[in-house]
Amino acid sequence: MTYELYYWPSIQGRGEFIRLVLEEAGAKYEDVARGEKGGRDSVSRILDGVGNTPPFAPPVLKAGNLYISHAANILMFLGPRHKLAPKAEAGRLWAHGLQLTMTDFIKEVHDTHHPVATSLYYEDQKKEALRYTGEFLKSRAPKYLGYFEDILKRNGGKYLVGRSLSYPDLSLFQIVTGLRYAFPKAMKKIEKDIPLSVALRDAVEKRPRIAAYLASPRRIAFNEYGIFRRYPELDKK
Amino acid sequence: MTYELYYWPSIQGRGEFIRLVLEEAGAKYEDVARGEKGGRDSVSRILDGVGNTPPFAPPVLKAGNLYISHAANILMFLGPRHKLAPKAEAGRLWAHGLQLTMTDFIKEVHDTHHPVATSLYYEDQKKEALRYTGEFLKSRAPKYLGYFEDILKRNGGKYLVGRSLSYPDLSLFQIVTGLRYAFPKAMKKIEKDIPLSVALRDAVEKRPRIAAYLASPRRIAFNEYGIFRRYPELDKK
Repeated sequence: MTYELYYWPSIQGRGEFIRLVLEEAGAKYEDVARGEKGGRDSVSRILDGVGNTPPFAPPVLKAGNLYISHAANILMFLGPRHKLAPKAEAGRLWAHGLQLTMTDFIKEVHDTHHPVATSLYYEDQKKEALRYTGEFLKSRAPKYLGYFEDILKRNGGKYLVGRSLSYPDLSLFQIVTGLRYAFPKAMKKIEKDIPLSVALRDAVEKRPRIAAYLASPRRIAFNEYGIFRRYPELDKK
Repeated sequence: MTYELYYWPSIQGRGEFIRLVLEEAGAKYEDVARGEKGGRDSVSRILDGVGNTPPFAPPVLKAGNLYISHAANILMFLGPRHKLAPKAEAGRLWAHGLQLTMTDFIKEVHDTHHPVATSLYYEDQKKEALRYTGEFLKSRAPKYLGYFEDILKRNGGKYLVGRSLSYPDLSLFQIVTGLRYAFPKAMKKIEKDIPLSVALRDAVEKRPRIAAYLASPRRIAFNEYGIFRRYPELDKK
């Protein structure tokens, strides 16, 4: 079976957490909006309705007859199927809980540049963004990252869940990498307190399939349209 | 088995979505922090660590040996066990996706009074709250509520999922009721466009177990410490 991923074609965004899992799994998938017949219209068509179950927003994964929306929901579906999550219920719920904490974190990252409204430009909410990001870098990012660091520590240091790589590890790679892109100065300081997370990030980057993916044109570069944006004025040491 | 719910004892908050399911299911549960030996300390103890899987934040449900965190994760667990969600995978994923959209919506409701930081008082971010809430009531609330209205319409009008009550219906009840508490003026206008959602809300309120719960001391009253807060200056017609 070939999965179909529906997500905006020009950003990593929330779709990237799914792309990383599909790549690490070596799964066959089509990143539909980036294909020849794709484009943004292919995503809009999905949102207009898949039978009576239209998703609220992308990403959406088509797996056979199933259309699944919300990144964390999709990862929960893919994980056990591709040996990137425990199969037993307790482990599945724990991995999903971790992913939902990352979902909350990612929303707060997004709000560093859009604290008032998604419908407004960054430039029109810059004043609020400066204040929001100040609190984010001082309190929220260290709190979330410290939490995942603690989980790594309690679990032996290498992986967040169990004794092998799972999808939350891939998401933590993306989060640390993205924060480094967006806030290079602030992260230099924050990273001192999360050595296990940084080591996990580095290890994920070197995994053969991930390394090949990152070097390929399939990996969209970070840019100022996605979740992780580099606005130097927001990056406080 | 008696479930144990760990959540702050003085607010409805995110715990309320779980209380509603447990009440409608007629399940045995202890709202630990509200019990004699409870209090806020009982929640803090859970956050300090349950073995090596400490949750990031409440609510947490203890079910036998399982500790599950994140409201949507808990509801996904409880739903099929208490006939409040489909058992088949497609239905489970669809219900969970709807709940995750509600999770996003609820976070935005929270941000109407805390757009800068949870660690600051409302009074210290009132200016930003006024601007955020303006956009929220103009665009975001109608968009989310319109989405659920559309799902109800496509599904025959009475329920969000399948042909009987499920946990997303109970959550939509809580959301419409909460928004009505927080923004009575704005909701009077918005409700004109979501008749099916309002009818669902009314139907849920009259269900015998929910009606008994709402009339009991177990239901905490809305107040200005939870997600849905009534600050008249934010409520625009």
